[in-house]
Amino acid sequence: MNYLGDETLERLLKRAGSPYAAAEARDLIGGVIAAPEAPDAGAWTALIGSGTELERQLKALRDEMAAAAGGGGRDGADRLDSFRRRLKRRRLDGFIVGRGDEHQGEFVAGRSERLAWLTGFTGSAGLAVVLRDRAALFVDGRYTLQAKAQVDGAAFECHHLTERPPSGWIAGNMGRGQRLGYDPWLHTPNQVARFVAAVGKAGATLVAEADNPVDAVWSDQPPPPIAPVVSHAIAFAGRSAADKRRDVAETMKEDKVDAAVLTAPDSIAWLLNLRGGDVPYAPLALGFAIIKADASVSLFMDPRKLPPGQDGLLGKGVGLKRPEALGPALDRLGRSQDSVRLDLDLAPEWIHGRLKKAGAAISPGPDPCQLPKACKNPVELDGMRAAHKRDGAALTRFLAWLDREAPSGAVTEISAARRLESFRRQGEHFRGLSCCTISGAGEDGAIVHYHVTEESNRHLEPGTLYLVDSGAQYLDGTTDVTRTVAIGEPSEEMAERFTRVLKGHIALATALFPKGTTGSQLDALARRPLWEAGLDYDHGTGHGVGSYLGIHEGPQRISKVPNRVPLEAGMVLSNEPGYYKTGAYGIRIENLVAVTPVPAPAEGEREMLGFETLTLAPIDLRLVRPSLLGVAEKAWLDAYHARVRDELAPLVDSLTAGWLGEATRAVG
Amino acid sequence: MNYLGDETLERLLKRAGSPYAAAEARDLIGGVIAAPEAPDAGAWTALIGSGTELERQLKALRDEMAAAAGGGGRDGADRLDSFRRRLKRRRLDGFIVGRGDEHQGEFVAGRSERLAWLTGFTGSAGLAVVLRDRAALFVDGRYTLQAKAQVDGAAFECHHLTERPPSGWIAGNMGRGQRLGYDPWLHTPNQVARFVAAVGKAGATLVAEADNPVDAVWSDQPPPPIAPVVSHAIAFAGRSAADKRRDVAETMKEDKVDAAVLTAPDSIAWLLNLRGGDVPYAPLALGFAIIKADASVSLFMDPRKLPPGQDGLLGKGVGLKRPEALGPALDRLGRSQDSVRLDLDLAPEWIHGRLKKAGAAISPGPDPCQLPKACKNPVELDGMRAAHKRDGAALTRFLAWLDREAPSGAVTEISAARRLESFRRQGEHFRGLSCCTISGAGEDGAIVHYHVTEESNRHLEPGTLYLVDSGAQYLDGTTDVTRTVAIGEPSEEMAERFTRVLKGHIALATALFPKGTTGSQLDALARRPLWEAGLDYDHGTGHGVGSYLGIHEGPQRISKVPNRVPLEAGMVLSNEPGYYKTGAYGIRIENLVAVTPVPAPAEGEREMLGFETLTLAPIDLRLVRPSLLGVAEKAWLDAYHARVRDELAPLVDSLTAGWLGEATRAVG
Repeated sequence: MNYLGDETLERLLKRAGSPYAAAEARDLIGGVIAAPEAPDAGAWTALIGSGTELERQLKALRDEMAAAAGGGGRDGADRLDSFRRRLKRRRLDGFIVGRGDEHQGEFVAGRSERLAWLTGFTGSAGLAVVLRDRAALFVDGRYTLQAKAQVDGAAFECHHLTERPPSGWIAGNMGRGQRLGYDPWLHTPNQVARFVAAVGKAGATLVAEADNPVDAVWSDQPPPPIAPVVSHAIAFAGRSAADKRRDVAETMKEDKVDAAVLTAPDSIAWLLNLRGGDVPYAPLALGFAIIKADASVSLFMDPRKLPPGQDGLLGKGVGLKRPEALGPALDRLGRSQDSVRLDLDLAPEWIHGRLKKAGAAISPGPDPCQLPKACKNPVELDGMRAAHKRDGAALTRFLAWLDREAPSGAVTEISAARRLESFRRQGEHFRGLSCCTISGAGEDGAIVHYHVTEESNRHLEPGTLYLVDSGAQYLDGTTDVTRTVAIGEPSEEMAERFTRVLKGHIALATALFPKGTTGSQLDALARRPLWEAGLDYDHGTGHGVGSYLGIHEGPQRISKVPNRVPLEAGMVLSNEPGYYKTGAYGIRIENLVAVTPVPAPAEGEREMLGFETLTLAPIDLRLVRPSLLGVAEKAWLDAYHARVRDELAPLVDSLTAGWLGEATRAVG
Repeated sequence: MNYLGDETLERLLKRAGSPYAAAEARDLIGGVIAAPEAPDAGAWTALIGSGTELERQLKALRDEMAAAAGGGGRDGADRLDSFRRRLKRRRLDGFIVGRGDEHQGEFVAGRSERLAWLTGFTGSAGLAVVLRDRAALFVDGRYTLQAKAQVDGAAFECHHLTERPPSGWIAGNMGRGQRLGYDPWLHTPNQVARFVAAVGKAGATLVAEADNPVDAVWSDQPPPPIAPVVSHAIAFAGRSAADKRRDVAETMKEDKVDAAVLTAPDSIAWLLNLRGGDVPYAPLALGFAIIKADASVSLFMDPRKLPPGQDGLLGKGVGLKRPEALGPALDRLGRSQDSVRLDLDLAPEWIHGRLKKAGAAISPGPDPCQLPKACKNPVELDGMRAAHKRDGAALTRFLAWLDREAPSGAVTEISAARRLESFRRQGEHFRGLSCCTISGAGEDGAIVHYHVTEESNRHLEPGTLYLVDSGAQYLDGTTDVTRTVAIGEPSEEMAERFTRVLKGHIALATALFPKGTTGSQLDALARRPLWEAGLDYDHGTGHGVGSYLGIHEGPQRISKVPNRVPLEAGMVLSNEPGYYKTGAYGIRIENLVAVTPVPAPAEGEREMLGFETLTLAPIDLRLVRPSLLGVAEKAWLDAYHARVRDELAPLVDSLTAGWLGEATRAVG
């Protein structure tokens, strides 16, 4: 179907009673193109109007616009040069370019990929500082290898975020009287405070630039994304938005705050039982919200994300406002001298500054939705269990397929990842992947957050390990699982280290701990078997996971980094110790677990918690050395595998079921 | 010898060439009386002058003055009433009374025991808030039982510091427009920030009162203590004061600070290789210091603590100034716009406020002496090892004595503590106890920081446990050790729980961990064997210990509470898991350990650290159930006991040596 021109479109729009003229429809479609592709690919047309012919024309226009978009960009060195010229014109001696968007999201829309555009680095976390004559990129341990591969070393020094922190680099490389710019929409007040301290040491000053100079030189930067917003059914959410708003308002009253500014899209999605599609891998609609102590909510979001006349789906007590209305709303909070809760680790400095200027009494503290969102209710937990069965069946079919196909040498990292996705797509309630699949063969497995490309694509070869970290979004839950598989015969070292990783995994899975314990306190349990051999891994052991929301969520975390949030019943976390030998292989065993109350042992005195493992998929026994496992560890492994077999065998084909029986045999 | 009157004294002072007149000598002696008794009881006379007759008269005057001091105080209710009247006169609606002194010391001089004077509570940490019509005392888990026993419940509510924090209580009990006072000398800037937030929630204000209203109503409050300051020999310190000052100045330059204000007496003692005697249990001279980036130091301290004409012992580049000179010195730092390092967790708000007012650029950060002080040099570590042998021999003689005497029922908590002290006194370099001995029989052992009194004194009885936590100061090191001993036949439950505590102790003692690991990360290893039975303990697992300095020092710590300071080679910590059954018995096994580099295991990849156990004393095998220990745990216990036997047997009498052989028999 060809696009027949704006005049035809104008006529069809009018006939359908759409509120949009053709030019407006074009604009809206620009936003649709800037959003990731949705599982129901044509659903967005309802945002403009209905009718077979109109829908066809809209899709044709979209395809035409999408084909014309992109291309024509400058190359890397050109970009950095033009960016530096722009800085000079603004009398800036440097600028901080982060990876975050206005919502500190891990997955961001195309227009927010400023760091990738400028440096070439596509990892999910990083920070560049560009000065007049030198520039540096800072990444964490997951990304040091990737950064070196992607970034022009002549233009950017690459540093490890904690070994050579940006603050020290800034203090050492800037001079007295110099001006370092930053975008106050893209950094939190706590980040800005660290920048201020860093430039202060050098005698320089930090300058907020409300319009980002990257945007000024990025000529083909995509517009803000527009994906349809839909309501999340109570059958999955377990609690109505009205009840959640009331709960949150209660805790706000206890904290004596009159209003809270919500800047995290997952908080808003959870609170209002809404889902969107503005960013990859998470069903989020980008926007801001203010909740007041009377439980009323103002949602600041592009109204075009709702089908015309559909803002009723927001519910009574929730008002939809245009994004531009946020500033004046903050001013009003200031004028009425309200006490306003703001999360200084999540909110943009722009909001913080505006509230301060308006005279609001800022009450720094956690976003009041983060903790209740993290503690899943029984309906959400049931959904997680159901989603994990479907997901486990798909992964098991994949693992069985891999065992049949890989020995021939025909499987590649890309073909494996595609095959796994195709099995997942067949599952009920599937809504897309929850992260970019890490499909790492051999030495690629040692790159902790490896992202395969056509250039890096490697065959799975005998005598190597294959690491696959993947997950999916289902209407009833989010999954995230890693398995490491022996292709052919593994070496003794591989098996010994895999077994150590497994011992750490089991230590955490079976941990019993008193109420009040944080994830940081438990982290060492998962590392000890590696430490005993002088080994370790450079990433956290567990992150929170949302309920059909982000694959990474706070406030809980199992990590070396101190975290003061106690684990609470209903929280879902990953349990993912690993081991990586650069240039050789990578090992990770990841299951999701739910924090669950555990009846105290006889004569126990404390209220105890433990973990229920949610993920169901076999752990490769060819890599397990039972002689290195204790009695209790073997018992855990056998019981887990028996459960995997019992739950999944009915859900898979008989060929897979046969393979599963063998893959889950007892080792005890 | 009687005191012959001021005229005689005047004559003797003149003849000795003392700079003091009789009235001044009286004043100085008042300070001497306010300091704890020193091991060399008459050494203080050198502060005034020498000569046999003068020294005799000075001692006689001291005894006369000491006998006249004390007594005549008001009782508890009277004190609170008069304090409240004083607050009213100052138009304050309340006041915060802490336990800390101007140096945030754990052990404070008598004049700083304001919390004890006002509330009766004598624990080492606590905070009272006195309002017009109600008052509350906040203590941590170690002290909840003791607080209830010591404090008048009608006058003070007693709360658990973390379950009902003062901030919440203040916010809930104060009203709009009310004024809450505090003494800016006694609270740190970070504490004050929390108070400000708390009163802010109630709409009240926080008011700094430079002269403490407790002092105004405490008529017989002792004066500031005066104990002789002596130099700490390089043979024990291992590094000259000049070298240490240069090292610290180096790190200051790296941090781009021009000066650092030192408010912790142990930092000053370490830096200048000085020791004093102003507070109990730690050889500290109270004072403040400013170190500049050129390594010069100004020490603000009562000059009467040095013998006349002896300030040469401070060394070149160190100037002694009167305490009143501190304020003007801070003003000068401000005027020259110096960047001044201040530890906002250690320094008094008074100093912070004065610096701010003077215009100094405050660089918040850790006291630059704390970390180098914590990392003991090889000479200090050798001293610690030597001190622990002597201390272990004394403790072993005590344990052998206890085993002979306790079954008769004649031993009490007080007589046991005295006996232990008498064995320690015989050791070379002994300078006093390092803490108040916790000598807890039966249910008293469950009071974590039990302090026996004549009223509470209990006999050690068969079928009970006896817990003794004690330590000493030696010129070459500081010790801190806890042993739990079965008196007669212990119950199965006691032995099972003791064995769990021992398993936790061993897990920590044998831990191997990569460089960069903090104590908080290791804490759970010591708790896991208790957690597995639904049990836990409400105190930290390990605190830092000084080298002939404080028995508790930072910045390192092994605790549930997040701590961001990595363990470094040379740090000394306690390893002290426990279990407490209220009303029944207490168990704690405490050894000191030194962090030590460990050669990486074969094929290990990381730089690893571990612990060397310093404390030498048998662990009561009657309480150990070998069936609950793993092979490696039994091996550790047997190797430790073999070492204890080999090291200590040559140092004790033959009766004790025989007992020690039996007490350290192998269980493997």
